[in-house]
Amino acid sequence: MQNTLVSAARSESVSRTPVWFMRQAGRSLPEYRELRAGTSMLESCRTPDLVSEITLQPVRRHGVDAAIFFSDIVVPLEAAGVAVEIVPGTGPVIEHPVRTRADLERLEDLTPDAISDIAESIGRVRAELDAKHPDTALIGFAGAPFTVASYLIEGGPSRNHEKTKAMMLGDPELFSAILEKLGRMSATFIDVQLTAGAQAFQLFDSWAGYLSAADYRRFVLPHSAAVFSSLSHHDVPSFHFGVQTGELLPDMATVGTDVIGVDFRVDLADASRRVPQGLALQGNLDPAMLFAPWDVLRPRVEEIVRAGLAHDGGHVFNLGHGVLPDTDPAVPGLIVEEVHRISSEILGS
Amino acid sequence: MQNTLVSAARSESVSRTPVWFMRQAGRSLPEYRELRAGTSMLESCRTPDLVSEITLQPVRRHGVDAAIFFSDIVVPLEAAGVAVEIVPGTGPVIEHPVRTRADLERLEDLTPDAISDIAESIGRVRAELDAKHPDTALIGFAGAPFTVASYLIEGGPSRNHEKTKAMMLGDPELFSAILEKLGRMSATFIDVQLTAGAQAFQLFDSWAGYLSAADYRRFVLPHSAAVFSSLSHHDVPSFHFGVQTGELLPDMATVGTDVIGVDFRVDLADASRRVPQGLALQGNLDPAMLFAPWDVLRPRVEEIVRAGLAHDGGHVFNLGHGVLPDTDPAVPGLIVEEVHRISSEILGS
Repeated sequence: MQNTLVSAARSESVSRTPVWFMRQAGRSLPEYRELRAGTSMLESCRTPDLVSEITLQPVRRHGVDAAIFFSDIVVPLEAAGVAVEIVPGTGPVIEHPVRTRADLERLEDLTPDAISDIAESIGRVRAELDAKHPDTALIGFAGAPFTVASYLIEGGPSRNHEKTKAMMLGDPELFSAILEKLGRMSATFIDVQLTAGAQAFQLFDSWAGYLSAADYRRFVLPHSAAVFSSLSHHDVPSFHFGVQTGELLPDMATVGTDVIGVDFRVDLADASRRVPQGLALQGNLDPAMLFAPWDVLRPRVEEIVRAGLAHDGGHVFNLGHGVLPDTDPAVPGLIVEEVHRISSEILGS
Repeated sequence: MQNTLVSAARSESVSRTPVWFMRQAGRSLPEYRELRAGTSMLESCRTPDLVSEITLQPVRRHGVDAAIFFSDIVVPLEAAGVAVEIVPGTGPVIEHPVRTRADLERLEDLTPDAISDIAESIGRVRAELDAKHPDTALIGFAGAPFTVASYLIEGGPSRNHEKTKAMMLGDPELFSAILEKLGRMSATFIDVQLTAGAQAFQLFDSWAGYLSAADYRRFVLPHSAAVFSSLSHHDVPSFHFGVQTGELLPDMATVGTDVIGVDFRVDLADASRRVPQGLALQGNLDPAMLFAPWDVLRPRVEEIVRAGLAHDGGHVFNLGHGVLPDTDPAVPGLIVEEVHRISSEILGS
């Protein structure tokens, strides 16, 4: 039986709008905080017991239509031998940033052997989903080349990406070589997940929204497109998302993805007009709205369900950015029920 | 003689494109860091000797067409008796956040008497500009009601504004009453600056870009419009800007401002099509581009000058966000010269 999420992503007819939440597995869940206590983020991401349990927690609690594989954008880097630490409250910190051709040459390719634990984690999640939640899809995950490059070049999270942009403009050949290598790394990371049983994947370009459309097209889009292209033989639906990407939406939609995630700032009906016909949309409830009372949140959910159904390429309900850590863990489940109820009613199923 | 910046802002013909930089007065200048050493941000903002000197530093160094009054968004709050501290590396922290009707009632209005030092600072800047830089305009400054409200409601800087948005949706009457009071405060703060000699003003809505266009129109726009309306008798050009406001541009352009600042993500030619005819544009070089080599930065500057001159409502060259702290202090001056050179050449003057 084909999963509802997979059908919607393929722009096929569905009986209800599928729904999941970016960062649904994470700090907003007390059971996650309990499980993670005393274990670092990167160690958690490499421990199949923890990864599978954390990935499944929101499936059990919220009844979402998809599990998103619990990992981090820098996991492939670490697996390839890069000295990286995720510092709580800061983010990933890279011990030796990559800023020269010599730095790049020291960066090893990622081999599937180095992430056999990832395959094992995926297998465990799929086994439980198949047994207990057969209509819930497992979405694989990796960071897009530009976003991973920004961490590598800056040496950590950056609000302004000045070193990355300076290299992009000042040494476009080196910049391109870095993104090419990181694109291969992301593709390998996703390939292992798909081979082990993930039924879809999302490529996150967290920082693309810090580029103008012209720069995105010239310096970034070809490298993201290469990732999608190299995974096309898997014949699974692909998702692409970046925050603050209203201006980039028409370009990001041409990267070779089946579903394009829409930032919460963009009106979904506008997004529908900005993307090529037949592409599915994902999104785009503002995660901060989950802090509003249910009687004002509910109509917002309905509005997005209706706008999504009005789009002729399919719609996957999601937030327009990740679940915020202080979110009441009871709220996502209410949204799932409401999305299912309204969409089933409209679709007459 | 009418200043070039004032002419451009009024969509009148000019002999060259005027240029200034948001946050031109600040941490990127060694003379600023020296002057500020040992003095807190809020104390600096209330000391006319320091304010006038800091405001004038970039005029002397970069040869910009405008000085932007050195202050901070929370200065009016502090002057009205709110316990607020600007914590280095964090931002403004409010001791008692405003979250209830009773909290709001305790918030005093700002009286001009409470900011006589601001009038004095403006007077000093104008005296030196008149004497030494008669073609350099002085732009006054205040935060827009939504941005100030977010600090007050959250209790400090917030990446997601969840408390602010929850109140906006959950208690729109209280939210509106807070923005109304803060709008009066911003208007008083600017009024004092204009009365003391500022020749234009910019209302900064730093956080507006975190709202959808529909929410911006309904909950925020009327309060920003009230600020512009209450200052219209001054007959000086007004500027409005917020970062990440591509989606909001058509709405922000109707707030009653003469010039609309464009975020660096938005193509200036697109911006020209999104705003009502006759409105001047300001912007929009990516501040991170100032870290690129001059031979790639220079054509970017030229591109923006040309796009600005192609817009029929006037153009003020600026960044599409503030100067970054690590910017080489020699670069803004090079940009000023280049903007003047190219625009003069094109305009045949």
